[in-house]
Amino acid sequence: MVAPKNCKWFLEVLGPDEGHLHGIKAVLFSKETPFQHLEVVDLGDYGRALVLDGKVQSTAADEFIYHEALVHPALLAHPDPRRVLVIGGGEGATLREVLRHRMVTRAVMVDIDREVVEICRSLLPEFHGGAFDDPRAELVFEDARQWIEAHDERFDVIIIDLSDPIEEGPCYRLYTREFYRVVHQRLSGDGLIALQAGTVAVHDLLNFSAVHRTLSSVFPIVCPYTANVPCFGLPWGFQTASKQVDPRTFSVADYEERIGRRIAGELKYLTGALCAAQWALPKHVQARLARETRLIEDDAPLYT
Amino acid sequence: MVAPKNCKWFLEVLGPDEGHLHGIKAVLFSKETPFQHLEVVDLGDYGRALVLDGKVQSTAADEFIYHEALVHPALLAHPDPRRVLVIGGGEGATLREVLRHRMVTRAVMVDIDREVVEICRSLLPEFHGGAFDDPRAELVFEDARQWIEAHDERFDVIIIDLSDPIEEGPCYRLYTREFYRVVHQRLSGDGLIALQAGTVAVHDLLNFSAVHRTLSSVFPIVCPYTANVPCFGLPWGFQTASKQVDPRTFSVADYEERIGRRIAGELKYLTGALCAAQWALPKHVQARLARETRLIEDDAPLYT
Amino acid sequence: MVAPKNCKWFLEVLGPDEGHLHGIKAVLFSKETPFQHLEVVDLGDYGRALVLDGKVQSTAADEFIYHEALVHPALLAHPDPRRVLVIGGGEGATLREVLRHRMVTRAVMVDIDREVVEICRSLLPEFHGGAFDDPRAELVFEDARQWIEAHDERFDVIIIDLSDPIEEGPCYRLYTREFYRVVHQRLSGDGLIALQAGTVAVHDLLNFSAVHRTLSSVFPIVCPYTANVPCFGLPWGFQTASKQVDPRTFSVADYEERIGRRIAGELKYLTGALCAAQWALPKHVQARLARETRLIEDDAPLYT
Amino acid sequence: MVAPKNCKWFLEVLGPDEGHLHGIKAVLFSKETPFQHLEVVDLGDYGRALVLDGKVQSTAADEFIYHEALVHPALLAHPDPRRVLVIGGGEGATLREVLRHRMVTRAVMVDIDREVVEICRSLLPEFHGGAFDDPRAELVFEDARQWIEAHDERFDVIIIDLSDPIEEGPCYRLYTREFYRVVHQRLSGDGLIALQAGTVAVHDLLNFSAVHRTLSSVFPIVCPYTANVPCFGLPWGFQTASKQVDPRTFSVADYEERIGRRIAGELKYLTGALCAAQWALPKHVQARLARETRLIEDDAPLYT
Repeated sequence: MVAPKNCKWFLEVLGPDEGHLHGIKAVLFSKETPFQHLEVVDLGDYGRALVLDGKVQSTAADEFIYHEALVHPALLAHPDPRRVLVIGGGEGATLREVLRHRMVTRAVMVDIDREVVEICRSLLPEFHGGAFDDPRAELVFEDARQWIEAHDERFDVIIIDLSDPIEEGPCYRLYTREFYRVVHQRLSGDGLIALQAGTVAVHDLLNFSAVHRTLSSVFPIVCPYTANVPCFGLPWGFQTASKQVDPRTFSVADYEERIGRRIAGELKYLTGALCAAQWALPKHVQARLARETRLIEDDAPLYT
Repeated sequence: MVAPKNCKWFLEVLGPDEGHLHGIKAVLFSKETPFQHLEVVDLGDYGRALVLDGKVQSTAADEFIYHEALVHPALLAHPDPRRVLVIGGGEGATLREVLRHRMVTRAVMVDIDREVVEICRSLLPEFHGGAFDDPRAELVFEDARQWIEAHDERFDVIIIDLSDPIEEGPCYRLYTREFYRVVHQRLSGDGLIALQAGTVAVHDLLNFSAVHRTLSSVFPIVCPYTANVPCFGLPWGFQTASKQVDPRTFSVADYEERIGRRIAGELKYLTGALCAAQWALPKHVQARLARETRLIEDDAPLYT
Repeated sequence: MVAPKNCKWFLEVLGPDEGHLHGIKAVLFSKETPFQHLEVVDLGDYGRALVLDGKVQSTAADEFIYHEALVHPALLAHPDPRRVLVIGGGEGATLREVLRHRMVTRAVMVDIDREVVEICRSLLPEFHGGAFDDPRAELVFEDARQWIEAHDERFDVIIIDLSDPIEEGPCYRLYTREFYRVVHQRLSGDGLIALQAGTVAVHDLLNFSAVHRTLSSVFPIVCPYTANVPCFGLPWGFQTASKQVDPRTFSVADYEERIGRRIAGELKYLTGALCAAQWALPKHVQARLARETRLIEDDAPLYT
Repeated sequence: MVAPKNCKWFLEVLGPDEGHLHGIKAVLFSKETPFQHLEVVDLGDYGRALVLDGKVQSTAADEFIYHEALVHPALLAHPDPRRVLVIGGGEGATLREVLRHRMVTRAVMVDIDREVVEICRSLLPEFHGGAFDDPRAELVFEDARQWIEAHDERFDVIIIDLSDPIEEGPCYRLYTREFYRVVHQRLSGDGLIALQAGTVAVHDLLNFSAVHRTLSSVFPIVCPYTANVPCFGLPWGFQTASKQVDPRTFSVADYEERIGRRIAGELKYLTGALCAAQWALPKHVQARLARETRLIEDDAPLYT
């Protein structure tokens, strides 16, 4: 160990035998909210980061990858996305990407933790880019499960942007078959949902494949895909699900045309080619999805 | 910090402000060879791993991803790959994947460090899978730059499987324009080369883009692509280069047909679809490649 | 983080917010015995170390400090120590120091874990220095609580050389008032006991003071003292207890005379002056001992 | 690794193969001053801490141990300490302890780094306890070597409270024989100096013994002693030096009487007994001091 200039390290525990370390430049905020441990940290090469319960949610350097990968495939595949629901997504960056779609007329964001949103609003202005002030946006601070069960509004696209469903966190009941069934009811006929679904690292595929199995028990079309978000320390997985539309059937040209016509400004991560290519999964991931039997249910959470 | 069951940790330094941690189950070998620090370590979820100069080269759990991604795209794109040169690749897993191609009649592997190869042979039998004993294989322990300059044999495919070109390591002169020019001379007219080219993490693209720029100054066709090798802790980049053949022009069906006909046994990572899809790069990576001006030369190494 | 030559680290968790790191040169042994996790590790500057349940027990570089500090004050204070019982002490170094006392005619060592002793015997020869083969020594592999309750042999000195009484470990019932009462019965009238009693770091005095309170409920004379064992990462505490003899009443000259006459060979850590001086505790430690009310009992362990 | 509540860690590098970890609660200040890297961090169990160049200088939990051990032995041994010079000591806690001596009429503190003092003044109020505002105190922001060479004022006690003399730091020329000769000239006939002198860990005694050798080449009486400051992660060493007075000759009663008469308020660490006992060094430390030949000189620094 040669003396480092920086002596402050952020350790993200990735599993019982794995972790990722970031140098800390500054700790901007740290508090136990009623729902989770909330921190905003300035991390070495990645810049400002939102951290919830010790897990890096997104960083200034690569949040564009995560949020473009999460939002655009589903919205681009929809023929005419007007009403969008964002579940979670406290940074406001998911909302920001949703609102870049010119067709969107209404975007409701439901996040349980008002403090997360307020802190992100003030400390991470480039993450939301003013999205919270867009007149098309409505912010709701409520448990999303409760909210969606109580509101029968239908949406064209529902983006679920949550932490992984660890038991202690606030998100566990937002990954179950019962929840997805309500989501299915709230989705218009040609609607799609999209969600982050945990790592796709070869030794840690349970979450990704169980989410896939659970979605497949509710939706006829489930499309898993991956993206590299370097700050996570492991390769990452996403999934869309829908009743009719399969985003894997669109060509590069389809995606390019829709990107050009529908999205304001320039994308930084996605291209038409990447939109079309990203569905090609590694063979071992396909194999794991094919043999997964685990369903996530309200009374059978993934981790107990 | 709750008491972990394992107290022994492998820390891979990824940069001045970033690291990746693995639990250590056992240290099987550790020695300073004349060329580098050589270790074989049993790592938590990843199993046995080859470590050179503190960098994880490959692990039992995910070496198949790295080696399939490195070897097959170039060999599949070649019309009739018979003679293959492997530079580096001490584990023998690159050689193993090369020899799965039924058309290959001769595979020369040149690695400077006999001790690495001998230790891998005895401690990592599943990495080489007996490849060192294949009658088509020839092993040479010599500096690859010296060897290739001294031998005018021509090859259909040349796989360069080396550590990143840090100054102190043995590999620096195997990443320069001068070296690639000799490689170009040793390549048959429809030949291709393939190499690992470092991380493609958004904050650390210099190596990947400088290698791309340097290759492009020698070869008319350079095809960068990426693969997720989780043990590396960051997303990873590869590149092929050639005089005539462009692997991006092959269809899914082309790749599937060639995989089925040419390769013995089942692939675990690659599919025809992934072979065709993997060339779609993130837009920000493309942008960085497009504006990179840095050339790696014998008297202008990347890191000084 | 500048690239360290060594990438393998031993992390000893000292508390929820504190740890100590050692570079690992080699892992010589690692196994889950029926009683604990047993490891022999070669640690950077400290050399070979015995590690039980992730806690460094002693290292080649500084075990002489720990074992001299543990053994000699009690034996030197006794007028004529002939029969000595060692409880725990798997390395054999406590036994080694006991047997350096020329007056000792019988030393029984009771350790629950035969594998620990066997591994120390073969991998840590300088720790035991042949003590296991001394004709005065008897080795018993049995639970010490059970053994001492079942055997009514009386001893002049009883050395208790155990890990701290964490719940999961094998040692918890060897730190309770009930146990000390049996120890009291097995001790000759002018006998003394000595034990390691955890850290004396200012923020972590509970174990040291609760042991002191518990001993004081059984023995009329309890003498706490400290020693610096650097590998532990925190300052360390010891205690003697007795029915009649108070080692704090001996002068420097007394200790020097007894060291010279009774102990074979040269001490490396203790001097007569240090024997006499070591009882002077920091004022804040005294204050904590004075106000501690916590008793450790069979049905009221320290940590639950 | 089980998920820790805190993910932010302060890593103090203690040597090439050793480190100490503290959980970080908050980072209150972090800046590169013209002289060093300055941080105030709230550390897990230790509370607020001053950190210079990555080294913990003192913490709320145990700074009383360090500062009482550094200041009082020398002042108590002096027959009538009126004028005191403090070199370094940015926290103000050394000054605070000096000013508790009722006899002191003038205390000059010379620290090169105004920013350290200002930050400590505002963020560490319990460390200085108002000492900077004491009318007897004079603060000088200047290189202490330069200041002492330029001022021929004589002092009864000189306390040198600096970081270890690593080459890059500002302190190296304040540990040399040339500097101690000037200090000797500025000391009254019955004066004493006191200084912290690095760790006394068995594997890392060079600094402590070279300082001792260097002091002994200038002063006839040099008295090394130790104290446990847990936050340092290793046992710590101090030394006094003088022309005539030997603090080792005072009895427990002498120290108790002087503590009671001279010092305002209650001590928290030192007692008369500890003052008298602390000079008893481990035998191996004595042996190392006896055989040390290394002199620290302006043109022969300890680390190059």
